Amino acid sequence: MVALMNATPPSPRTRVRRVPRRARYDHDSLHRVLDAGYVAHVAFAIENQPYCIPMAYVRLADHVYLHGATSSRLVEALAAGLPACLTTTLLDGLVLARSAFHHSMNYRSAVCLGRLRLLDDPDEKARALDALVERMVAGRAAEVRAPSAQELKATAVLALALEEASVKIRTGDPIDDEADLERPCWAGVLPLAAGFAAPAPSADLRPGLAPPSPARYLDRANRPGAA
Amino acid sequence: MVALMNATPPSPRTRVRRVPRRARYDHDSLHRVLDAGYVAHVAFAIENQPYCIPMAYVRLADHVYLHGATSSRLVEALAAGLPACLTTTLLDGLVLARSAFHHSMNYRSAVCLGRLRLLDDPDEKARALDALVERMVAGRAAEVRAPSAQELKATAVLALALEEASVKIRTGDPIDDEADLERPCWAGVLPLAAGFAAPAPSADLRPGLAPPSPARYLDRANRPGAA
Repeated sequence: MVALMNATPPSPRTRVRRVPRRARYDHDSLHRVLDAGYVAHVAFAIENQPYCIPMAYVRLADHVYLHGATSSRLVEALAAGLPACLTTTLLDGLVLARSAFHHSMNYRSAVCLGRLRLLDDPDEKARALDALVERMVAGRAAEVRAPSAQELKATAVLALALEEASVKIRTGDPIDDEADLERPCWAGVLPLAAGFAAPAPSADLRPGLAPPSPARYLDRANRPGAA
Repeated sequence: MVALMNATPPSPRTRVRRVPRRARYDHDSLHRVLDAGYVAHVAFAIENQPYCIPMAYVRLADHVYLHGATSSRLVEALAAGLPACLTTTLLDGLVLARSAFHHSMNYRSAVCLGRLRLLDDPDEKARALDALVERMVAGRAAEVRAPSAQELKATAVLALALEEASVKIRTGDPIDDEADLERPCWAGVLPLAAGFAAPAPSADLRPGLAPPSPARYLDRANRPGAA
């Protein structure tokens, strides 16, 4: 892979122009944002109509992997190698300023451009599918039944090389006009709750089986592909 | 507006084909999903390259409103009336099955097609901007400094009429193959945390000002446009 992520924008079309101080173009920033999300929005156009579809994904090294039913319109469109855009956004907080205008949100987003490639190689496909399960809970792939030949056939895996991307991050307090600071209204951030609630066992769960320990799904560093 | 949301798919291109039992096409379902989210992913194409950009939004009646800097590429592209797709996804949980293949996610998503319209009418624009602030905290628009003429000029507001859309929802337990039920591994849902953490006051906050009560931002029914 050509290492295009560095301290400068990788292409005119991924250069962030609005509030450029919030932009990042390095691999580490990109990987950290991608690794914190579970669902990406994938955009592609058919007959001039863009579609934007949520898909589970996982990053491994410098690729993002997606999967879908082999027979789906979505996979068919993406596997055709149309230009696509994969975006992940993590909403961290609502930013309440003293003026309506300066209200904002704290977020991390990654916008990746490219064409997706349908995986042919069974080993690469198996690795990506394992990683999608491992992304949920570290060590899970070894505990569950592996995909059968039929399931593998029914599942398409697509890869996007991370060659043209940008990251945008806003953190911290509202930035108010000096003249508004004396206004008697609260200002600050309402942080979105992070993490997980208590595991909910399946109604048909065999007795005596404990849920995965939180360390296996909360600790991002445990999973494959983590920066 | 033509009421196209009903019990049947509004158009061939928004008919959900994968797992159609998870699809909804009625107004109430659409409004409920849109009203639960803060950020939508908006897709549009420029010179055959799709872009997918996260944007704050609010729904009022049968329109979704977005805003951006008047001078931005994004607003310029959307205001030109290109075909667009606005998608909101709420991830509710990771669904852990006994087989890799049946791992899934619980989610609610709304996919809306259409062309955006740049608001000219100052009253409609003011209402939408108020609603974007009210969406964060009910009653907030009256507490903060209203937009100045210059701020209004710098802010573009775009509207998408909800005329062609679909909703997809997955809830509940994993659905395992009968033969896998005896497998000795935990199965169930890891629910994503919902709601908010404790408010974080701005470093420059005047003393003696209390944060908004949780009822003002947790209770969805408080805000304009709620179904």
